[in-house]
Amino acid sequence: MNFKINRNKFYNSLQIVSRSVSPNSPIPALCGLLINAGKDKLVLTGSNSDISIQMTLSGTDDLTVIEEGKIVIDARYLLDIVKKIDSDEVSIEIIDGTLTRFSGAKAEFKINGYRPSDYPNIDFTAPETSFTLNSKDLNTIITNTAFATSNKETRPVLTGVNLLSNGISIIATATDSYRLAKKTFPINVEQFNVTVPAKSLNEIKNIFSGNDEDIKISVNTKKIQFSSENVIVQSKLLEGGYPETERLIPKEFIYDLVINRHSLINAIDRTSFIKTDNMSITRLQLNSIDDITLSSKSQEIGEFKEDLTAVSYEGNPLDISFSGNYVIDAARALDAENIRVRFNGDMKPFVLTNESEDQSILQLVLPVRTYN
Amino acid sequence: MNFKINRNKFYNSLQIVSRSVSPNSPIPALCGLLINAGKDKLVLTGSNSDISIQMTLSGTDDLTVIEEGKIVIDARYLLDIVKKIDSDEVSIEIIDGTLTRFSGAKAEFKINGYRPSDYPNIDFTAPETSFTLNSKDLNTIITNTAFATSNKETRPVLTGVNLLSNGISIIATATDSYRLAKKTFPINVEQFNVTVPAKSLNEIKNIFSGNDEDIKISVNTKKIQFSSENVIVQSKLLEGGYPETERLIPKEFIYDLVINRHSLINAIDRTSFIKTDNMSITRLQLNSIDDITLSSKSQEIGEFKEDLTAVSYEGNPLDISFSGNYVIDAARALDAENIRVRFNGDMKPFVLTNESEDQSILQLVLPVRTYN
Repeated sequence: MNFKINRNKFYNSLQIVSRSVSPNSPIPALCGLLINAGKDKLVLTGSNSDISIQMTLSGTDDLTVIEEGKIVIDARYLLDIVKKIDSDEVSIEIIDGTLTRFSGAKAEFKINGYRPSDYPNIDFTAPETSFTLNSKDLNTIITNTAFATSNKETRPVLTGVNLLSNGISIIATATDSYRLAKKTFPINVEQFNVTVPAKSLNEIKNIFSGNDEDIKISVNTKKIQFSSENVIVQSKLLEGGYPETERLIPKEFIYDLVINRHSLINAIDRTSFIKTDNMSITRLQLNSIDDITLSSKSQEIGEFKEDLTAVSYEGNPLDISFSGNYVIDAARALDAENIRVRFNGDMKPFVLTNESEDQSILQLVLPVRTYN
Repeated sequence: MNFKINRNKFYNSLQIVSRSVSPNSPIPALCGLLINAGKDKLVLTGSNSDISIQMTLSGTDDLTVIEEGKIVIDARYLLDIVKKIDSDEVSIEIIDGTLTRFSGAKAEFKINGYRPSDYPNIDFTAPETSFTLNSKDLNTIITNTAFATSNKETRPVLTGVNLLSNGISIIATATDSYRLAKKTFPINVEQFNVTVPAKSLNEIKNIFSGNDEDIKISVNTKKIQFSSENVIVQSKLLEGGYPETERLIPKEFIYDLVINRHSLINAIDRTSFIKTDNMSITRLQLNSIDDITLSSKSQEIGEFKEDLTAVSYEGNPLDISFSGNYVIDAARALDAENIRVRFNGDMKPFVLTNESEDQSILQLVLPVRTYN
């Protein structure tokens, strides 16, 4: 193997591919990136047990392949060398077995690599069921839902976002069983029902967030794959049936509040340091449109109170308490200037949506019981 | 106590004073800041066992004192409240015992404070021996030396920077016994010899780095105090005699290298990931001005080699190894384009200085023994 390439373009690609590398993988070769120099192209592969990334560079990246071949190099060293080497072009050549030379202008590294035969064979063929999303839409779907997944491994399937296609829409749902986030995106595609680890989706968001480009998404019962022109990212799926969440979402409501989204977020945020048992509980007292109070209290620290101004309120007086952080997360995932919060009682789940016509996002939060 | 003040000015002051607060202090009141509203002025005090800060605000900070008084409020809550409250002016009033009300526009906090009588009495009177330094010169002295202090508590005095006045200059010295940094600053002041914790000096650098102002420095055998117009910062001193370091610094040299500072730093930095036993050892082979090589080697990772271009080299061939990070730190503390590195042999300490006429900074590094 022997090739030359533009240092910056190589470094940017290595940064992306290395996102999938676990530095302490039990399989030593997986601490590395597989570099495969083929005819006029360079394929970089990184992988851990959850996510795998493959990136292809070509002549447009100032690549010149002098001799084809492959090698695995520890991702940390590879990034450090390419970042700091003293020239705009870097030459990489296997000189003896797995010993690989990186040359800049005057600087020269000789690094012990791993045998490419020690690198697992990763299947990057695309599953048949596929559809295309713009990267911005993909990012929105992830941003609106992934935060609501569980971070506890007690029910592994809740650590992922469920993606359900019903033929006309994709419905993304996440819940940690105390709150739920749901985003519907209209698209024609075969039916499927998979749950993708939130961790993978957050990496995917980072990888594709820079560009406004079409992302092909392919899915089967084993994996989901996201690919753009020169990057393929694929993730494992979470096993186990995703809970039926649709029946948890109330369709009718007794109380209906419309309020400025930022003023609600800021008011709850002001009270967030008032914690009891490390939980920040916010109490909302809805009496009439002119008498709405947000408050929080802790024996130890003190108390907070703020009068809120609503756009509208319909319903009898209601006194309800909830996790302030959950409502902040939910309100942040919405994007209208004013949001609608609808309730069915002080111990029933409540629903946050945009006030605007865009009802594709829905956030549900469970209240908490307090003894005020 | 009852006063009103501009939120931003109050918040900026709280940020400075809270730098001295240890959130987990065994004395609960020391987790707080003492707020003392006097006639037309507000004095804020924070302290831990090492460093104490006092800041005075007045009418120019849009302060209006309605009723004099004092209270201690937990620094974390205080910062959070003042940062997030919903108006440009904040009103603070003791309403019952230690219960203190913070009011913005619609938001209102009631926080349990600590009794001011529980707050230790901190003496901010200035010691008699004093001199004045510009904040930029003070920062330079700290930046050039504090990094070379020890981070191990085995010899506590080495965790500080020694400040010695000989009547015509102040000599700042720091050493961890493997390297030494020395900065001389000409100034007429009585003789003194104190050692100040590096941690305190780094805080002082942060506090005074924003402005170009005169700092009065006062010192006795117990403490050192730095004061500007409205801030007083004082630190405890480290006990125990500081080692005689002057005799460790060679005055004559056998080998003399002049080299571009940045090219030396960058070359060593390139090799820094090549570590043996978690130490990055760099080898410098000086044969002649046209034959200078920097290299590094690790059985496990691989090796690095780079030919260096020197400005000049005088001396026989020399083959010397050292901690790459120590030489990078030393070269960064210098500020000339080219630096002079002078040696007396492969196992003798070597000295880095500016090539320019400014010889007020001196950096000394001990080589390491290797078995190449």
